[in-house]
Amino acid sequence: MLKAPTLPSDLITPELRSMAEVLFSQLREMSFDGVGISRETYGPSETAAMQVIEATARQHGLESTWDGARNLLIRLPGRDPSSPVVATGSHLDSVPQGGNYDGAAGVIAGLVALLAAKNQPAGHRSLELYALRGEESAWFGGPCYFGSRALFGLLGETDLTSPHRDSGATLSEQMSACGVDMGRIESGEPVRRPDDFHAWVELHIEQGPVLIAKEKPVGIVTGIRGNVRHRRVVCRGQPAHSGAVPRWLRHDAVLAMSELLMRLDEHWRILLAWGEDLVFTTGIVETDPQEHAVSRVPGQVIFAIEYRSQDKKTLENFGKLLETECDKIAAERGVAFELGSPVKTEPARMSDDLIALAEDQARAAEIDYEVMPSGAGHDTAVFANAGVPATMVFVRNDKGSHNPDERMDMDDFYTGTEVLARTLIAAASSDEGNENER
Amino acid sequence: MLKAPTLPSDLITPELRSMAEVLFSQLREMSFDGVGISRETYGPSETAAMQVIEATARQHGLESTWDGARNLLIRLPGRDPSSPVVATGSHLDSVPQGGNYDGAAGVIAGLVALLAAKNQPAGHRSLELYALRGEESAWFGGPCYFGSRALFGLLGETDLTSPHRDSGATLSEQMSACGVDMGRIESGEPVRRPDDFHAWVELHIEQGPVLIAKEKPVGIVTGIRGNVRHRRVVCRGQPAHSGAVPRWLRHDAVLAMSELLMRLDEHWRILLAWGEDLVFTTGIVETDPQEHAVSRVPGQVIFAIEYRSQDKKTLENFGKLLETECDKIAAERGVAFELGSPVKTEPARMSDDLIALAEDQARAAEIDYEVMPSGAGHDTAVFANAGVPATMVFVRNDKGSHNPDERMDMDDFYTGTEVLARTLIAAASSDEGNENER
Repeated sequence: MLKAPTLPSDLITPELRSMAEVLFSQLREMSFDGVGISRETYGPSETAAMQVIEATARQHGLESTWDGARNLLIRLPGRDPSSPVVATGSHLDSVPQGGNYDGAAGVIAGLVALLAAKNQPAGHRSLELYALRGEESAWFGGPCYFGSRALFGLLGETDLTSPHRDSGATLSEQMSACGVDMGRIESGEPVRRPDDFHAWVELHIEQGPVLIAKEKPVGIVTGIRGNVRHRRVVCRGQPAHSGAVPRWLRHDAVLAMSELLMRLDEHWRILLAWGEDLVFTTGIVETDPQEHAVSRVPGQVIFAIEYRSQDKKTLENFGKLLETECDKIAAERGVAFELGSPVKTEPARMSDDLIALAEDQARAAEIDYEVMPSGAGHDTAVFANAGVPATMVFVRNDKGSHNPDERMDMDDFYTGTEVLARTLIAAASSDEGNENER
Repeated sequence: MLKAPTLPSDLITPELRSMAEVLFSQLREMSFDGVGISRETYGPSETAAMQVIEATARQHGLESTWDGARNLLIRLPGRDPSSPVVATGSHLDSVPQGGNYDGAAGVIAGLVALLAAKNQPAGHRSLELYALRGEESAWFGGPCYFGSRALFGLLGETDLTSPHRDSGATLSEQMSACGVDMGRIESGEPVRRPDDFHAWVELHIEQGPVLIAKEKPVGIVTGIRGNVRHRRVVCRGQPAHSGAVPRWLRHDAVLAMSELLMRLDEHWRILLAWGEDLVFTTGIVETDPQEHAVSRVPGQVIFAIEYRSQDKKTLENFGKLLETECDKIAAERGVAFELGSPVKTEPARMSDDLIALAEDQARAAEIDYEVMPSGAGHDTAVFANAGVPATMVFVRNDKGSHNPDERMDMDDFYTGTEVLARTLIAAASSDEGNENER
C-alpha cells in the first residue's frame, strides 16, 4: 500500500471553503431556469459553467486546457510530469430542472482538492481535474456519459445520432457546435489512453438515502451497479367475464404478474441475506386502457423489470431466476410471459487498493464513513471499465437528486472534499502501487 | 301453477329465424369497431341498434315507444291491457371491443318471442319487450344497469356524476344528450312501478363455461351474484431512484399491491375449498404515466378490485378480509391503501314459480336444460330486487363474453328463444298466479 504523507488538519482552508461557496452560488445563479437548475449536455449553459470553473482555477495559478471532446482539464504538475496522473472530476451538465450539486459538487471538490494539494509539497505525480461534459441521459433520450466515453473513443453511431429532447438536433451537431472535431470522435480515436491514468477518484452527492439513514457524512464506493432492463414485459392470459368464469378456468394476467413479482421480491430478500448486492424494481405496470375493465379478468398486462448489482454474476443469476419463475408461473396459470431483449449496462468494480487508500485517509482524518455501492451510474464506471483504477467518494445528500430539492450540507461537502483531497495527494505522493504499471 | 296453452312445435317459425339472423348481421355490421363490437352506454351506437330493433318490430306490426329513460319498449297487447304485463328484454350496449350476442341476443329473442306469440291467440296479459340501455359497467367506470335502474327511479348522484372512460362527460350529460329528462331522473321518480309487471324473463348468453361443460343448450337461472367494486384503489408508497435506494429504505407501491393481490388470491382459493361462492378480479392496474419510469421505484399504483358472490354474507366477510390485509401490508411496507367507497350490487333471488314455469315449458318442448346460478350481473337483478317476479334463460355460449370471440350456436339460440317464448306465453295466458296480486 501507499504510504500517506502527513497532512495538516486544516487541509481545506477557510479560503478554499469561501471559494467553493462562491462557485456554488455562481453556478446556481447562472443555471437557474425558474424551477431548478438546467445545464444542458454539450450546450451553452454547460460551457458557461465550465468557463467559471476554468477562470477560478487560473486565478489560483492552475493550468487549464480543453481536450479533444471539449472537456475542461485543469492540471497541477507533479515532480515527474511524465508519470501516469492521478485524476479527479465529475460532470457539469444537469438534468432539466435538476439540482445544483449533482455533478458540480465533484468538480468544485476537485478544484478545492487540487488547490489544497498545491499548498503542500509537490507530489510525485501530476494531479488532474476533469470538468466532464454530458453525463446525464435526460437530454438525448437515454444514452449518456458522453464526455467520459469520448475521452476513451467509445462514442458510437447510436450516441452521435441521438436527437436532443427539445430541438431534435443530434448529439453530433451539438458537440460540433461546442467546437469538437467530429471526424476524430467518429473515427473512435481516444483522446486519452487508460494507462495515462494512475488513478481516478470522483466525488458525487449520494443520490439515495443511505448516508442519511446511517448518519454518516461520507461514503466510499466499492462498485457501480450495472443494470438489466426489460422495458416491456408482456404477460398474456385470457380475458374473461369477471362474474361468470370460475377460478379454475381463469388465466388472469395481473395475478400471474403479481405472483412473479412476489416470487422475485422473496428471492431478493433471501439474496440480500446471503450478502449479494441487488436491487429489483418494477416501475411501470399497465393493463391495456383500450381493453381493461373493472369487470373483466385481465387478459394482458405490460410491465417493466429492472435489476441492478455491482456483481456481474448476480445479474446473470437473477436473470436466470427471472426466466425460471416466468416458466413456472406460465405453466401453473396458463399464461405466457414475453420478456423481450433486455438493455444491459455492465457493472464497474472499483479498485480495492484505492478503496483501502481512501479508507486509510478517512480514518487518518477521523472521518466517519460508510463503505457502499453506488446504485446510480457515473462517469467513474467508464474510467473503471476502461481499465483505470477508480473509486468514488459520496457526500450525504437529502431528497435524492435530479430534482431542485436536493440538499447537501456544506459541512458534509468539506468532509467529503477532505477525503477526496487526502486520497488524491496520497495516490500522487509516490510511484508505488501503480496498478497500471504493475 | 299456471296451465300452459298448447303451443305448436314450430313456434319459432323459419320466417322468425331469418329475421333474427338478419338482425344479428345488421347489429354486427353497424357496431364493429375494427376489433370487436362497441355499443356505447347511452351513446349513439346504442341508440342506432335500438332503432334497428324498433324498425323491425314496427314492420311486423308491433307497437313501440321510448320511455322516460329512453329505453325502447315494444308491446303486444293482451286481452286485458290493464293487467300487469309479462315482460322480457335485455340491453343493447356492449363493452368496448366486446361481442355481438351479450345483451343483443336477449332483445332479438324477445322480439322473436313477441312475434311468435302474435301468431297465437291473444293472451290475457300484454307482452312487453324492453331494449334497455346502459347495462355494462365498462363505460362509466363501475356503476351499471342504468336503463333498468332508471326505470324504477334508482339512479343516484354517484351514478349520474360518473365520468365517461374516454370523453370524461358525466352519465347525466350522456343521458341528456340521448333525450332523457334529467330533472325527472334526478328526482328519483320511477318510470314504471314494480307492480306494473306480472313477470320478467330475460334471455342472455351464458357468460361462463358451465353449459358447454354440461353439454346442455339452455340454462334456467336460480339467482344472480351480487358484487362489490372498488374501481379506484390507490396504493401510495414513496418514489425513489431505482439504483440508489436499497430494499430496506423502499416503499414500493407495486410490490405492496402485488402482495395484497396474492394474499386475496390465496384467501379465495381457501374460501372455495370451504364451499363459499366467490370470484375475485383485479381488471385494471396502472402506474402514473406522468411519473413512472423503468428506473424509478413506483410511488403510486392505481388498481380495481371486484368480488362477487350469490351470498350477501360472503361479500361482507371478504370485504372485511380486504381491509385487514390492506392494513397489515400498509404497516409492513410503509405504504397506504385508499380503498374508496365501493359500488355494491346486491345478489338477487329468482322467483320459484317462474323457474318452475320455465322448467315445465322446457320439458313440454323436450328441451334439455340446466338449473344454475348466474355468475354475472344482469338487469334482471334490478327487476327482482324491485319486487318483480323474475328469472332468466341462459343460452350456451363458448369463449365467454365481453370479447369479440363469443360464440353462440344459432340452434342453441332458437332453443333458448323457444323456452323464453313458451314461458312468456304461458305466464300471459291467464290471470292466475300473479305474485304481485296475491
